[in-house]
Amino acid sequence: MDMMNAKPSEVRHQIRAGRITGQTSGMCKGYAQANLVTLPKDIAYDFLLFAQRNPRPCPLLEVSDTGERLLKYIAREADIATDIPKYRIYEQGELKGEYENVVEFWRDDLVSFLIGCSFSFEGDLLEAGVPVRQIEEGKNVPMYNTNIPCHPAGIFHGNMVVSMRPIPYELVPKAVLITGQMPKVHGAPIHIGNPEAIGIEDLSKPDYGEMVTIKDGEVPVFWPCGVTPQNIIMNSRPDFVITHAPGHMLITDTKNINLKF
Amino acid sequence: MDMMNAKPSEVRHQIRAGRITGQTSGMCKGYAQANLVTLPKDIAYDFLLFAQRNPRPCPLLEVSDTGERLLKYIAREADIATDIPKYRIYEQGELKGEYENVVEFWRDDLVSFLIGCSFSFEGDLLEAGVPVRQIEEGKNVPMYNTNIPCHPAGIFHGNMVVSMRPIPYELVPKAVLITGQMPKVHGAPIHIGNPEAIGIEDLSKPDYGEMVTIKDGEVPVFWPCGVTPQNIIMNSRPDFVITHAPGHMLITDTKNINLKF
Repeated sequence: MDMMNAKPSEVRHQIRAGRITGQTSGMCKGYAQANLVTLPKDIAYDFLLFAQRNPRPCPLLEVSDTGERLLKYIAREADIATDIPKYRIYEQGELKGEYENVVEFWRDDLVSFLIGCSFSFEGDLLEAGVPVRQIEEGKNVPMYNTNIPCHPAGIFHGNMVVSMRPIPYELVPKAVLITGQMPKVHGAPIHIGNPEAIGIEDLSKPDYGEMVTIKDGEVPVFWPCGVTPQNIIMNSRPDFVITHAPGHMLITDTKNINLKF
Repeated sequence: MDMMNAKPSEVRHQIRAGRITGQTSGMCKGYAQANLVTLPKDIAYDFLLFAQRNPRPCPLLEVSDTGERLLKYIAREADIATDIPKYRIYEQGELKGEYENVVEFWRDDLVSFLIGCSFSFEGDLLEAGVPVRQIEEGKNVPMYNTNIPCHPAGIFHGNMVVSMRPIPYELVPKAVLITGQMPKVHGAPIHIGNPEAIGIEDLSKPDYGEMVTIKDGEVPVFWPCGVTPQNIIMNSRPDFVITHAPGHMLITDTKNINLKF
């Protein structure tokens, strides 16, 4: 199967059947992928407010109805409990485990939040001649916890997670302009150049994903990341949350170009 | 007092003191104004979800903490209960009355939603030579109920309200491009040219605000409007809601230019 040119519904079907369990970067060219946070209704207001106050790391693409596994807007008939290659479950803020589906954990009081992913702007970067190193190297994008505080909301508080791409100096302005056009998938960088300034002590050891090569003449550029909620959840310790595993996204039916408008 | 060049905090002080009770169009040039919806916590999740699903008419600039009268983000120390020139109270979807402040109606379970206003893009339109008729004529912008359905959420459902500005044919593309840059204040038009197509039977009789002159060679252009929640509230009939009176906005400390990024 040619994953890059496959239709999203076809790939979701393969994932649902358990035939794809790896990360989704580069699949279904042109279509948006989404981060997942699923949690009980009694803390859903706090999380919805957290996302409203922190649209850079948490741009919402869709919020499900309570108890509803099927999405309505960004991916018709997508099943939240089966159509992501790998899930994580957090209990009291601790990672309990990773699962290929979460059918047995589903509850009628769960609400799902689908959050935009920076994979969406990588197509435009590549098209414009800006390298995307983790795609070149076949890796998961490197992601880091930072010291950049999010605005708190209800029980949720903590710092932003960022993704990093090394960009040649002369292409940094172009990378800012291209990604700045797409605020629903994190938009422009949150920081350019100095990892220590945002609390990253060792760039070679990402907190999520894998390290990529930084070449001479390249600067590390950091974007707000949809893994931020997982850091917030570890910090705020709610009883029960389901997320995607970093890099293992929901592939939607929504074209990236439609996230610009 | 030169209202166009006054500081937002100065004007809010005049409003709080009851010395300004009229509409706010054209005040505090360069600063964003906001629509208000204040309602009890038990229906706040439904309204927050409604806004998430309908960002064209309901782009959220800030959501208060529960019971909190003071804003934190878009207008420091602004008091929701006193700093708007005219309020409306709806009970079971019926307009109960208009008030110069809502101090006596305040409750500890109220949550306030501040929604972007199309007044914010009018400065750029004028700067670019696109006429804004209701400012020329010293009127409140004409607003209409439409047949365009909003996405429902919880108890909230109903149709979009739009504002109308007559634009010369040759300037319509420019008006689309300028306003499309500002999605947090309703963004690009939702319809151009044919009022009947969106359910407006008589353009000369707006449902809110005042009619303005449409000259030869001009086309009516319609933008999603922050009065939409009032139509939704009349339709969905919750027990108790406070809003601003149409055209009588909260003047924030947030520069319009910062709503572009």
